[in-house]
Amino acid sequence: MSQTLDRTDPAEAGPDPAAARVDAWLGRLEAALVARDAEAGAALFAVQSFWRDLVAFTWNIRTVEGRDGVAALLRGTMDAADAHGFVADPDEQPTEAGGVTEAWILFETAVGRGRGHLRLKADECWTLLTTLYELKGYEEPRGPARPLGAEHGAHRERVTWSEARQREASELGAAVQPYVLVVGGGQGGIALGARLRQLGVPSIVIDKHARPGDQWRGRYKSLCLHDPVWYDHLPYLRFPDNWPVFSPKDKIADWLESYTSVMEVPYWTNSVATSAAYSPQTREWAVTVERDGNPITLRPKQLVLATGMSGKPNVPDLPGMDVFAGDQHHSSAHPGPDAYAGKRCVVVGSNNSAFDICGALWEVGADVTMVQRSSTHIVKSGTLMDIGLGALYSEQAVASGMTTDKADLVFASLPYRILHEFQIPLYDQMRERDQEFYDRLEAAGFRHDWGDDGSGLFMKYLRRGSGYYIDVGAADLVANGDVKLAHGQVDHLREHSVVLADGTELEADLVVYATGYGSMNGWAADLISQDVADQVGKVWGLGSDTTKDPGPWEGEQRNMWKPTQQEALWFHGGNLHQSRHYSLYLALQLKARYEGVPTPVWGLQEVHHRS
Amino acid sequence: MSQTLDRTDPAEAGPDPAAARVDAWLGRLEAALVARDAEAGAALFAVQSFWRDLVAFTWNIRTVEGRDGVAALLRGTMDAADAHGFVADPDEQPTEAGGVTEAWILFETAVGRGRGHLRLKADECWTLLTTLYELKGYEEPRGPARPLGAEHGAHRERVTWSEARQREASELGAAVQPYVLVVGGGQGGIALGARLRQLGVPSIVIDKHARPGDQWRGRYKSLCLHDPVWYDHLPYLRFPDNWPVFSPKDKIADWLESYTSVMEVPYWTNSVATSAAYSPQTREWAVTVERDGNPITLRPKQLVLATGMSGKPNVPDLPGMDVFAGDQHHSSAHPGPDAYAGKRCVVVGSNNSAFDICGALWEVGADVTMVQRSSTHIVKSGTLMDIGLGALYSEQAVASGMTTDKADLVFASLPYRILHEFQIPLYDQMRERDQEFYDRLEAAGFRHDWGDDGSGLFMKYLRRGSGYYIDVGAADLVANGDVKLAHGQVDHLREHSVVLADGTELEADLVVYATGYGSMNGWAADLISQDVADQVGKVWGLGSDTTKDPGPWEGEQRNMWKPTQQEALWFHGGNLHQSRHYSLYLALQLKARYEGVPTPVWGLQEVHHRS
Repeated sequence: MSQTLDRTDPAEAGPDPAAARVDAWLGRLEAALVARDAEAGAALFAVQSFWRDLVAFTWNIRTVEGRDGVAALLRGTMDAADAHGFVADPDEQPTEAGGVTEAWILFETAVGRGRGHLRLKADECWTLLTTLYELKGYEEPRGPARPLGAEHGAHRERVTWSEARQREASELGAAVQPYVLVVGGGQGGIALGARLRQLGVPSIVIDKHARPGDQWRGRYKSLCLHDPVWYDHLPYLRFPDNWPVFSPKDKIADWLESYTSVMEVPYWTNSVATSAAYSPQTREWAVTVERDGNPITLRPKQLVLATGMSGKPNVPDLPGMDVFAGDQHHSSAHPGPDAYAGKRCVVVGSNNSAFDICGALWEVGADVTMVQRSSTHIVKSGTLMDIGLGALYSEQAVASGMTTDKADLVFASLPYRILHEFQIPLYDQMRERDQEFYDRLEAAGFRHDWGDDGSGLFMKYLRRGSGYYIDVGAADLVANGDVKLAHGQVDHLREHSVVLADGTELEADLVVYATGYGSMNGWAADLISQDVADQVGKVWGLGSDTTKDPGPWEGEQRNMWKPTQQEALWFHGGNLHQSRHYSLYLALQLKARYEGVPTPVWGLQEVHHRS
Repeated sequence: MSQTLDRTDPAEAGPDPAAARVDAWLGRLEAALVARDAEAGAALFAVQSFWRDLVAFTWNIRTVEGRDGVAALLRGTMDAADAHGFVADPDEQPTEAGGVTEAWILFETAVGRGRGHLRLKADECWTLLTTLYELKGYEEPRGPARPLGAEHGAHRERVTWSEARQREASELGAAVQPYVLVVGGGQGGIALGARLRQLGVPSIVIDKHARPGDQWRGRYKSLCLHDPVWYDHLPYLRFPDNWPVFSPKDKIADWLESYTSVMEVPYWTNSVATSAAYSPQTREWAVTVERDGNPITLRPKQLVLATGMSGKPNVPDLPGMDVFAGDQHHSSAHPGPDAYAGKRCVVVGSNNSAFDICGALWEVGADVTMVQRSSTHIVKSGTLMDIGLGALYSEQAVASGMTTDKADLVFASLPYRILHEFQIPLYDQMRERDQEFYDRLEAAGFRHDWGDDGSGLFMKYLRRGSGYYIDVGAADLVANGDVKLAHGQVDHLREHSVVLADGTELEADLVVYATGYGSMNGWAADLISQDVADQVGKVWGLGSDTTKDPGPWEGEQRNMWKPTQQEALWFHGGNLHQSRHYSLYLALQLKARYEGVPTPVWGLQEVHHRS
């Protein structure tokens, strides 16, 4: 049983100093905006301060820093945005702790409604998050605005739901062109497809597999999600509360398939995009798609690549691959261990997939050697859950009233520039808690790191998308010597062995290349052209000037969910959390363009790296 | 944004007289129970009072009336139940209005945990609802107790989720017998199957169709649910908030199919149970099932018929059906209107299906005549939503904090004996609101009623499961004369016409028999034997001594979700609301028997009518 209690009347409870401070600050912000006075607005921010905007002011995803950054953003956006109506969310109490006042805020722009989050130090803004959540006049049909379903009355020429769905399926891509084509139907494409359906934007999501979810079904059989259920909800339809914490791959696959059906995502299976070209004259793409083997040309106005940040396998090109007599697979194509009991297996790499595959091979009784090429960061899954995610994404968080929407916004409210400062102490705690584990691992010769600045796994994910393992058990096999360890690059293969750079020769019946994935930029090169890929530049990463994430500082993930240097080309992807949360902002950008709502982009990113 | 607020401390708010009255009454009840003093317990109830127990005390579904009834129930159950720990639910505030104090309560029994609802008049109990919601030691793995999913660590002989599912599918019904066999895989069988899966009871749900949801797909194409979405949620997985108010039949079908997959309901398609016999010696059933055409014998300990309260078509046997040259269908087999544009169509019957089918035929331009055989009760869908369901099942109810669980229990807390007294004023309101509509309908010659006692649609549903139409538009066609109306029984058919008892001859290319469905008892006769069907007696109805529901008064729906006179035979069914709510009590009864938890049944119903 749950109950909705009336809120305590603030008048009875006496004036709340945190609320008063927030109200006063929002009042000053509103005055500056109404006066179109960028300098007055900037003066409300602390010297060290951050404003992160998700599509509300900038029609972009941007973080600006300090008063100069704020002033620039305001000068560039405030006329068109015409933001106003800033209030503290009446359903949320501002809080004060450690000299920081926090509040949830609501506001409007000329064309939409926004919410956000504010942190004040004294009376100055330290961090501001502004996000758009709906467009005026294009609110989603949900809750009280849900469709009726049955069409009451008696109407000649009635079309049933089923007939309308069949008609759409037969016309879309033929008589009717999609406004958006989403290439790639994993969790990213599916979540975006659901949002676009809900917003009424004609779209098609295409995928090369036979069924939604096959992206997961095809992977090694022991794979389970490494992120917990509370972090993994898709938009609109939550996992039921009997869902496992770490979903087995085939179970999440079945969920994605059901979700695609239930949310009526327009989804083409067995469909591969083979080429795409944009015409600046007609402002549309011509995309050739092989659907069930038959070529067809689609002419969408917008093209989204949702082919996966871990979608394009890095398969090494090594001397002797052609003479090797055993089996060789990239990790993404490895079928699992069943055929390799008693066989000699070499797994090249030491990140998530490498560990999972080594573990599964050992479990069937294979003789397994891991080849570590560079140092890896490992955290134990339980530790990461407790210390890294627990406050926002856990059963405890749910019990304390934390919703997924709110957790996503709290997460989004921490500026990337200082996120590592929040992360380092957490990873220090993890190191302390599991010190004995790390000692054993290093004693076994494993080269372990905590990221360039000790900020751990999540920053590695944001910066480079690689270099770590969330340990669900296989690390102990390495620490114990059950899985053998070798070091260095592979130099070449022989008929029955792998030879490393230092001359070590590892006998092998199977070689698995757990050598990771290329930049999503590579998808654009393959599908469109190298010129367009170069023009768009590197995808993913923050410009943190750490390993595999060269500077300069960008402030946001490169090219993700926002306009790129190629008109009408977008990138979408990431884990389930990102697929859920950022698909909203991408969908709103596409919807606005579809409806002709003005979308003046401020601060289009510059390109510093090609790929 | 939502927020969990701390509850106001009752000490600060001052003593609450309603809460004090409830606490005192519960204290007296507990004292009587501890003392095993049935008379003292009964004395706590008003002269006119009702205690409804769903499986907590009685291992049955029973309502007793007055002090004698309460004393009898207590004498029969209190030792074994050992109920104790009665408290007002700390998350719910008792309320007082119109001289009635209401409270949500919690308690325990020897083997389980219960919740319920209490209404006091002065200090005496007017209505008490007690329900079991879980068995101690067999709590469902949900929320904080959800499974981990990934099996962490390295284990030789690891079995993945997918492998375990495949193994179960290959063994269940062959090497491993199901404990429960559920015959019928519509919403009832699916909801029960989900609960049994969740409770770890080995079960199989079988259905004759090729896919879950085909029970809906196969019906006439214009069909939409007549109940709104808030009333229709299944257990565990709620419809997303973009779900239409009245779901089109194919959309609910797709949902049921996805639900079956997501909830891992063990479901056999293309499977028909052809015979069943119970052995009192081995205490198991032998059920012959044709699965994909191949006979197989299952030996479950428990057999549930979930073949539908509207499952066994009443097809009339009329002279001349063999000479009629046109098409003839029972409403359940009618394919929809597409082939009948411009044709002469006679629809026999004037309830839900008859109106829906007449409307759909008229919409394609058929010439349609409805044959009304007896009077029918009609309410407009919007009116029923506003006045009949709004308080518990609506967007407004959700916004005011009403959960589906809570609404179900409020609904269950109203004793059937006096439910019509709550219903009559609502239908009086409906009549007033739509008076003009009813005047037009009757002017057109339609024979309309409000139920024998003016208590309207829901009582008709509970008493006889027929005799009404929830108007979604087709009634106007009759009122306007667009659909023609004839009266009386069909006497016989000729080659091109239908002849009524009064000699009226209706030319026809199509005859649809919207003549309803037989008692679920008929399923038992077909599958098991007429003897067992007679022993079990009539299924459904309350014994209200109204049309098609002969007395004596039973207090609960006959044979539904509770033990019958045939050991190990159960009936399950009804609308989505009943499939959701009552599947819990049926599942707990089955789980307790599976685990060997004692289930002494009190007050097994007597049989007053054979079918």
